[in-house]
Amino acid sequence: MWPKKVFIREVGPRDGLQNEGTFVETDDKVEWINLLSTSGITAIEVSSFVHPKWIPALRDAADVFRRIRRVPGVTYSALVPNVRGLERGLEAGIDEAVLFVSASESHNLNNVNKSIRESLMEAEQVVNRCAAAGISVRAYVSTVFGCPFEGSVSVSQTMYIVQRFVDMGIQDISLADTIGVANPGQVEHVLEEVEKITAIDRIALHFHDTRGLGLANVAVSLKAGVTRFESSLGGLGGCPYAPGALGNICTEDLLYMLHGIGINTGVDMDVMIRAARMIQDKLGKSLPSCTLQVLSNLQRIS
Amino acid sequence: MWPKKVFIREVGPRDGLQNEGTFVETDDKVEWINLLSTSGITAIEVSSFVHPKWIPALRDAADVFRRIRRVPGVTYSALVPNVRGLERGLEAGIDEAVLFVSASESHNLNNVNKSIRESLMEAEQVVNRCAAAGISVRAYVSTVFGCPFEGSVSVSQTMYIVQRFVDMGIQDISLADTIGVANPGQVEHVLEEVEKITAIDRIALHFHDTRGLGLANVAVSLKAGVTRFESSLGGLGGCPYAPGALGNICTEDLLYMLHGIGINTGVDMDVMIRAARMIQDKLGKSLPSCTLQVLSNLQRIS
Repeated sequence: MWPKKVFIREVGPRDGLQNEGTFVETDDKVEWINLLSTSGITAIEVSSFVHPKWIPALRDAADVFRRIRRVPGVTYSALVPNVRGLERGLEAGIDEAVLFVSASESHNLNNVNKSIRESLMEAEQVVNRCAAAGISVRAYVSTVFGCPFEGSVSVSQTMYIVQRFVDMGIQDISLADTIGVANPGQVEHVLEEVEKITAIDRIALHFHDTRGLGLANVAVSLKAGVTRFESSLGGLGGCPYAPGALGNICTEDLLYMLHGIGINTGVDMDVMIRAARMIQDKLGKSLPSCTLQVLSNLQRIS
Repeated sequence: MWPKKVFIREVGPRDGLQNEGTFVETDDKVEWINLLSTSGITAIEVSSFVHPKWIPALRDAADVFRRIRRVPGVTYSALVPNVRGLERGLEAGIDEAVLFVSASESHNLNNVNKSIRESLMEAEQVVNRCAAAGISVRAYVSTVFGCPFEGSVSVSQTMYIVQRFVDMGIQDISLADTIGVANPGQVEHVLEEVEKITAIDRIALHFHDTRGLGLANVAVSLKAGVTRFESSLGGLGGCPYAPGALGNICTEDLLYMLHGIGINTGVDMDVMIRAARMIQDKLGKSLPSCTLQVLSNLQRIS
């Protein structure tokens, strides 16, 4: 059984662009986000309120939030590493805060210079502040399927963090394959464990296509009842060291699969293709989107 | 439930190379096939005995067969379009003949200038000649999931051809997504229909990764009990009009997925990576293999 309806969260402006070597001008980001706001998508991860020193590509987060045209029904969220980042986000008018804790101790330390325990305490403060500010909050568990430092990550460590997020009342928890090593067997296993502690409709999945298994992992997740996924237009987010290397799963390829299966997403493929081409042009390089490649081949042949 | 054991048929030397603009020298083909013969793989589609005018890249089929080192336990097969091709193949010492009929009338006409009816009669002759020669035969149904001329292809048309192949006594029937448009929902549906007329262990699947769904389609096929797949080292077989466009599903990426799930293939990943690099070097261009890209990124970073 396939789900009837799936929700896609476009994370290209945040997760996609943060790894790009090229700085996309604020005007261009705003134009791009405005276009994809008209696609029918209901959630866009717009930027990140981390210190600009760490992610210079997203140093204009506040400007972007102030200048985008908000479409009713679309949630515009931003990543916040801590309460200080959240305050900057609130000032800029974010609809939703996104926090993150890694399932791997060494990745968490390396990423935010805190232990998992400290990050969970910070997360609690973010949740409380969001409640006071009246905005929603969601949370990533990073490196669920593998860590660049430790290699394999125990499922129980992920479950511990999911349980803590559940206890904090976070309704929307995303399990992220930060380095793109997950396989469908592992995904199934993790989802079986997650279902023991929370309802599957509270869970989103966030895959990277580093090993070409992103959509295979989505397929088994759909079968397990997951209906929320994060993806990037064009498959943005490849490693800056490798031209052509794959980043997030590609939104338009994901749409091709979901619509092909007969699953409703509410998203207009044509608008998304225009938006994917727009960011490809702005970056001035070929993105790893099969859909864009197929369309460009068809143009050459005809 | 995942299957415990999966059989991979390496089709790079045939389906991969036939679309390459560059002619790979016979010596190089032989060296490459000899290397991949040592990987533990049990089936290699070595070449094609079609008229050299149609596929110049494989014009050395007979030479390749005569010069490769045969490893016991490996089946060395070749595509044959008709009895004349089969005779050339038998002379060159093929272990197995591979015939093909398209599920789409216009694709069949365009491909071999015959109606499906005529192709099925030819297939019967090939089957009889193989029986007389004492070699095995297998069969592709092409364009099962879509046709470049007709668009969608009816499942009943595929089932008709599968039934005819079953009636001819062909034990090994491969359903091919010739143009790479299949999605997991469609694959499931076709497999449900196939199971009504024959055992699933008689069926192999042959996906192209044009839309990035190749491994997603494999994942749902595994769940449906399919244990035989065709793939190409490096993801060879992209459209000559599009550098970087994707061809067959990539053997080493498929192995990464299967081994990650815990499925036994009997194939040594390290040997396959060496073989993928070898053909990449001989072609002198980057192949769409995620595994090769990841390895080359790791080298750059370290």
